[in-house]
Amino acid sequence: MELMIYLAGEIHSNWRQQIKEAAKKQDLPFVFLGPMEDHTRSDNIGEEILGKQPDPVLKDDAASSINNLRTTILLNKADVVIALFGLQYKQWNTTMDAASALALQKPLILIRPKELHHPLKELANKAQVVVETPDQALQALKYIIEA
Amino acid sequence: MELMIYLAGEIHSNWRQQIKEAAKKQDLPFVFLGPMEDHTRSDNIGEEILGKQPDPVLKDDAASSINNLRTTILLNKADVVIALFGLQYKQWNTTMDAASALALQKPLILIRPKELHHPLKELANKAQVVVETPDQALQALKYIIEA
Amino acid sequence: MELMIYLAGEIHSNWRQQIKEAAKKQDLPFVFLGPMEDHTRSDNIGEEILGKQPDPVLKDDAASSINNLRTTILLNKADVVIALFGLQYKQWNTTMDAASALALQKPLILIRPKELHHPLKELANKAQVVVETPDQALQALKYIIEA
Amino acid sequence: MELMIYLAGEIHSNWRQQIKEAAKKQDLPFVFLGPMEDHTRSDNIGEEILGKQPDPVLKDDAASSINNLRTTILLNKADVVIALFGLQYKQWNTTMDAASALALQKPLILIRPKELHHPLKELANKAQVVVETPDQALQALKYIIEA
Amino acid sequence: MELMIYLAGEIHSNWRQQIKEAAKKQDLPFVFLGPMEDHTRSDNIGEEILGKQPDPVLKDDAASSINNLRTTILLNKADVVIALFGLQYKQWNTTMDAASALALQKPLILIRPKELHHPLKELANKAQVVVETPDQALQALKYIIEA
Amino acid sequence: MELMIYLAGEIHSNWRQQIKEAAKKQDLPFVFLGPMEDHTRSDNIGEEILGKQPDPVLKDDAASSINNLRTTILLNKADVVIALFGLQYKQWNTTMDAASALALQKPLILIRPKELHHPLKELANKAQVVVETPDQALQALKYIIEA
Amino acid sequence: MELMIYLAGEIHSNWRQQIKEAAKKQDLPFVFLGPMEDHTRSDNIGEEILGKQPDPVLKDDAASSINNLRTTILLNKADVVIALFGLQYKQWNTTMDAASALALQKPLILIRPKELHHPLKELANKAQVVVETPDQALQALKYIIEA
Amino acid sequence: MELMIYLAGEIHSNWRQQIKEAAKKQDLPFVFLGPMEDHTRSDNIGEEILGKQPDPVLKDDAASSINNLRTTILLNKADVVIALFGLQYKQWNTTMDAASALALQKPLILIRPKELHHPLKELANKAQVVVETPDQALQALKYIIEA
Repeated sequence: MELMIYLAGEIHSNWRQQIKEAAKKQDLPFVFLGPMEDHTRSDNIGEEILGKQPDPVLKDDAASSINNLRTTILLNKADVVIALFGLQYKQWNTTMDAASALALQKPLILIRPKELHHPLKELANKAQVVVETPDQALQALKYIIEA
Repeated sequence: MELMIYLAGEIHSNWRQQIKEAAKKQDLPFVFLGPMEDHTRSDNIGEEILGKQPDPVLKDDAASSINNLRTTILLNKADVVIALFGLQYKQWNTTMDAASALALQKPLILIRPKELHHPLKELANKAQVVVETPDQALQALKYIIEA
Repeated sequence: MELMIYLAGEIHSNWRQQIKEAAKKQDLPFVFLGPMEDHTRSDNIGEEILGKQPDPVLKDDAASSINNLRTTILLNKADVVIALFGLQYKQWNTTMDAASALALQKPLILIRPKELHHPLKELANKAQVVVETPDQALQALKYIIEA
Repeated sequence: MELMIYLAGEIHSNWRQQIKEAAKKQDLPFVFLGPMEDHTRSDNIGEEILGKQPDPVLKDDAASSINNLRTTILLNKADVVIALFGLQYKQWNTTMDAASALALQKPLILIRPKELHHPLKELANKAQVVVETPDQALQALKYIIEA
Repeated sequence: MELMIYLAGEIHSNWRQQIKEAAKKQDLPFVFLGPMEDHTRSDNIGEEILGKQPDPVLKDDAASSINNLRTTILLNKADVVIALFGLQYKQWNTTMDAASALALQKPLILIRPKELHHPLKELANKAQVVVETPDQALQALKYIIEA
Repeated sequence: MELMIYLAGEIHSNWRQQIKEAAKKQDLPFVFLGPMEDHTRSDNIGEEILGKQPDPVLKDDAASSINNLRTTILLNKADVVIALFGLQYKQWNTTMDAASALALQKPLILIRPKELHHPLKELANKAQVVVETPDQALQALKYIIEA
Repeated sequence: MELMIYLAGEIHSNWRQQIKEAAKKQDLPFVFLGPMEDHTRSDNIGEEILGKQPDPVLKDDAASSINNLRTTILLNKADVVIALFGLQYKQWNTTMDAASALALQKPLILIRPKELHHPLKELANKAQVVVETPDQALQALKYIIEA
Repeated sequence: MELMIYLAGEIHSNWRQQIKEAAKKQDLPFVFLGPMEDHTRSDNIGEEILGKQPDPVLKDDAASSINNLRTTILLNKADVVIALFGLQYKQWNTTMDAASALALQKPLILIRPKELHHPLKELANKAQVVVETPDQALQALKYIIEA
């Protein structure tokens, strides 16, 4: 049995790589899905496909229409969603992915540093599991498939 | 025909009051729902009901369990959700309410200053309507019930 | 028991008025919902609320975001949907409303002149009832509430 | 990971072939589904299976019952739907497929020439992505599976 | 609190009248819904609205499209469905109403004479309550609203 | 692409065999599911598993609980449902399977002799396709997977 | 705005009375629903309606079919569910009501003495709010409707 | 065709082993899923991943958040759920799993000793099949896939 795992959250650090490598090393039957991790490409994909847009708002709208297409399709395929929040960014799209997962009744694992407990308290309360590191999230997933 | 409208978003400014008064003045058949607007009470409601908690994380979890109860029940009753984002706060819970509305297939009106267009682009792309002021949101709602 | 009836379809003729008046005359417990019937206002509502848009495509997108807000909210409240097609217009939005109703498992009554049977055959096949005049649609609705 | 893609829209031009060949050349893991593309066969399938029908309306109804069977089953299997509109036809069934996809919460990519922006504005506003050429639609799908 | 109760089943006997009168006598807060009980009118309603049909199959299809419109709308409003089977008729439409109720997760009360236990065993097994008389069904409903 | 097809209907004739063999001969990618076809075994399965029951009603209830288990699990897996009605039996369980399929939004193909058009008119009106022979049903399914 | 509140849990103590009276005293807009509280009547309702049953298992099945009818109908109407567990009883039906509420995405308030934290830990983890007294549950509900 | 079967219930006896071995011996195409069966590990998994917790309630909450993650993911994958109740334990979490299955419209097979018929009567009434031994449950599942 394979698990499909969507990794929502910041694309500025290498936390996804960490999880993927650890899973690979332990030969876990996990398939990881997620957003485009190349930030510039993600911001420009709208204009890349649709051509130059008249202003920054329209450039953003074009890009996010393609990025939301990706998220929607891949989130639909996921068995479980991990959302990671870091100290540096607002990450409203991460919250959106996390809340979409909850509303689709897909279990959510929230990774956040303890410093963020206050602003994230409502989301934490809704998540199935709250941890502080990617490694803890992987441990929880590993536990699911133990005989 | 009455419309139930959930007003998600920051509780530090008086934007809800503005909308409610304008609606009242025009005698619109709108019922407004929303979160607890007294910030201190919202932060303390967990301890008020469940007693002193051992640490700030648990205090927050207690409070958010009650606040989420409120949001869930009222969001379920809403015909449409308005979410307002301002420049000052992270407002992850606003995003959560907005995304829950989307996932429940309730239409979303997003209010945000133009300065926030980039970080909010994915949510804006999913919203049914994006405006910049509470007054514009009310105009859109008023249009729904015009004969 | 009151029935909520959404009247989708062209806004260039007075067929809605006909149905509403006939229902009123017979004192039927029907509430009629529908799109903005003032065509110019419907086309301009986006700019009216959001201000002048840079080009016709964006003007249309602004208008349709408000018009779709109206349709979504009102369609959600409907018990049954009537969609009328005439010979003159493409009416893709009528088809969209009709198909949305079907997908939401709300029964659909299709009104169309016999001349349109070929291009509308797939929709006709999915509709619960197919008639040729607004009066026939009203007869069908009246039958529902006969003791 | 394979994506199932339903190609709704006119069957008079070879746009599907174009997309399929481009996908094959790039070895993309896409499975394409769609309506019967042989127009005459599609119009006659009802009589082919059920025998000669008494009049054109019944012939059409017989055909569309079989064509709708095909659409319903294949649309249920799709991860994403592409709908192409051209200048020449009314294509109400394309709109129906597009709206069904939306109501089933499957993301929709709309392909339409800019000339059609006004009559298609409501559908465009609901689509996840709006492009002008089949090639742009394929680019968007390709982006979804980039690592 | 009012209960909406759909009474599916044969229209040849007066069992609905019996239930309605007993409920009225006891002043129970029940609203009863159901099919057209005038058999001839039910068989002819298609032609009454759509005009003379070319053959009996088409006459039946026209009638059942209107009767199914009625059933669908009223079943959607019901809190609970009662289905009565008698010894005399095939009543496939009663079974259809009963199974629709089950699939919509509305509880079903089945009324059938003991003689029918074998052919109705699968439906009986799915029903929430199985009784032999209309009076027993009413007793069960009355129990729901006892303080 | 494989299609899962549930064959509901009488187990006294060999119509399933006919369809399966024709599909095999043409090498169609169809998997057929259905009820237990050994009538005696189907009637006795309750007592076989649960032991001798006190009376015929309880024997029937025990058997139908196991048979409904089978139907529910297999119907959930089906892409499309075929229901065959013959002249001889009441087949209320066939109607139940057909109506369950409809309510789960799975397309239904109804096979019935023309003589049954009147008592089956409501179900026929809801079915996606109505034919008279198993061979016609297979033709319709074959059409779905034609390139 | 009125809230419908289902009170699941033991019927041997007067906790429901407590909540109802407190709500009445404070004039709260709450409607309380719940199971039959007369234990003997609840155990005998099956035989009362269906007549003497051959053995205790069948007597229980008859009773629970009627009691489940009541629970299903009333739970469907509830905005929120309160489930109270005491030290003395196994209350598997309370758990069933609580889990049904969760699965229907209705928020759950769990009332349990601290001594029960271990056996109820999975349910507590799923509940929206966990408290120890009926009065705390009422406080949480009151908070929902504060302006 | 493979069946996914979730085995809910006590983890103190070896009933799962019994079923799995019997299925293997008969070469049945069944995949068995279930909770962590090592009781100590199940109770400690929260602290194992999240570190030492301040008190037993929080230790339990941490553990159950991980155990519920497992149950939710695996239950979502199941075609059918078996729930076994024994005489010794309260097993509220088993009831929760059983009721979740019911609410997700997955068929439930209940295994319980006859002595438990009274306290489990509501759940038994909702289950698709009620048996007394694991072997009987396996017989019922085997029947599903008989040709």
